[in-house]
Amino acid sequence: MTLKFKMKLVQYMLSDHKYRIGVLKDDRIIDFKSKFNFVPFLMVEFFASSSALNVAQEIIDHPNSTYSMEEVTLLPPIMKPDKVICIGLNYKNFCDEIHTGCPEEPVAFSKFPSCITGPYSEIKLPTISNQVDWEIELAVVIGRKAQNVQAKDAYDYVLGYTIAQDISARDWQARNGGQYLLSKSMETFCPLGPYIVTKDEIPDPHNLTLRCFVNGELKQEGNTGDMIHKIDKLIEHLSSVTILYPGDLILTGTPSGVGYYRDPPEYLRKGDILESEIEGIGRMVNHVV
Amino acid sequence: MTLKFKMKLVQYMLSDHKYRIGVLKDDRIIDFKSKFNFVPFLMVEFFASSSALNVAQEIIDHPNSTYSMEEVTLLPPIMKPDKVICIGLNYKNFCDEIHTGCPEEPVAFSKFPSCITGPYSEIKLPTISNQVDWEIELAVVIGRKAQNVQAKDAYDYVLGYTIAQDISARDWQARNGGQYLLSKSMETFCPLGPYIVTKDEIPDPHNLTLRCFVNGELKQEGNTGDMIHKIDKLIEHLSSVTILYPGDLILTGTPSGVGYYRDPPEYLRKGDILESEIEGIGRMVNHVV
Repeated sequence: MTLKFKMKLVQYMLSDHKYRIGVLKDDRIIDFKSKFNFVPFLMVEFFASSSALNVAQEIIDHPNSTYSMEEVTLLPPIMKPDKVICIGLNYKNFCDEIHTGCPEEPVAFSKFPSCITGPYSEIKLPTISNQVDWEIELAVVIGRKAQNVQAKDAYDYVLGYTIAQDISARDWQARNGGQYLLSKSMETFCPLGPYIVTKDEIPDPHNLTLRCFVNGELKQEGNTGDMIHKIDKLIEHLSSVTILYPGDLILTGTPSGVGYYRDPPEYLRKGDILESEIEGIGRMVNHVV
Repeated sequence: MTLKFKMKLVQYMLSDHKYRIGVLKDDRIIDFKSKFNFVPFLMVEFFASSSALNVAQEIIDHPNSTYSMEEVTLLPPIMKPDKVICIGLNYKNFCDEIHTGCPEEPVAFSKFPSCITGPYSEIKLPTISNQVDWEIELAVVIGRKAQNVQAKDAYDYVLGYTIAQDISARDWQARNGGQYLLSKSMETFCPLGPYIVTKDEIPDPHNLTLRCFVNGELKQEGNTGDMIHKIDKLIEHLSSVTILYPGDLILTGTPSGVGYYRDPPEYLRKGDILESEIEGIGRMVNHVV
């Protein structure tokens, strides 16, 4: 029998502001480092070791320190990865909404890793944009170094899934020579979390409802089954071009309902509350300041 | 009197394959960690401290271990930065060569940091491209966190300069929906080095000759004075959009003479030797395999 690793991995800090990693179980956070001092401070470093999931399971089975949710501040479950890859135009209803065909090959762009922010952190409106928009996305977290992986083996390289917001400054998407990078890479433009749900907890990552609310009003609702390029094909494609490393994130695209294509267009404003939820994973709540 | 920090910073390894940082002086490498054990293993972590240059000067003045060049393998002087930002179309003769106007605003795209490779390392030709091309560039290394920096203060945030090759798969530049990211992010596509020359050693970064040779034949020759968007303006622009961190790299564009626009076009082939030199900085030699 293959061991199933079902866990919700978190990064968090206590009042000392040091980064820690652990898992959420029965409303308590089980700390990793207090059990084994060799555990690093960052999730990306922990999963650089091939035995990481076994170590995590051992700690869960025989925990040392645990904390209540009230005692901790949840951080993004991944910080400082090598890559935050975003896939554009990957839901048919989004392509329809913007009156463009679906791309035959995935379209990949990136955000700088330092734009990642926490699941309950503030999104800062930059002074240089008046068109800051939401895009809820399922984020795939890579668990093992992946190069030239075939689609049939792709899930062997997946650690799990989390929720991401690909916050976008629409007025900058047409600038910068049409390269999306800057429009996607402003400070706090990548809320992430609240935890990584390991793949064994998600029977089918292509049958999950995604919902995005602004001030309680439903703006986006979709299902990951409607992705044009599915996760296995994305990993095959991306790993044929570049090397994927543990902790790398693939943001798999957003369904219809973003603000830019509404009539009239809508954008995030100071004081807004952005809620992002994906079935089987959880919910993020980010205030706009 | 302001203290001038004139040094050539290197990352290297001995036969134990551990990363180390140091400086090159009089043909010997002065090791940092053997003097002060608190020195981290990576340059980006060392320069996260605001006193890094003072610590480096103290070690240079009173060195502990030193090594000959024969004893070490030089690594890229920066590894694992948050950002490798590339500026497109930033030399007038390059814009002329490709028959396009000069962009009024800088055009920024990126490479994944894991594509960085050493100054004497091999460039691997990917199986998925037949059009791998060279682009010599002056790389600016950021020394301090920079956000909303004005051009007049920009050099306060510069640690120094090094040489980069923005290796590019031309056949992929038109793919991926026109986003350059993947064409620029294949394995080994960012040779970097051989050292960071601190800014105090370079009286004018806009008066440096750049030369790129393939198999000894001069392919590119330009001067950094011909940049359209100068370094101070690039830092002002980029730091208005995103936060720059110590170790972040800005590849400032390439002059004319790349392979793609030659008649007939030329590309890197197995066995080629790519040499890249910038006046006052040094020379990289990369074999193509």
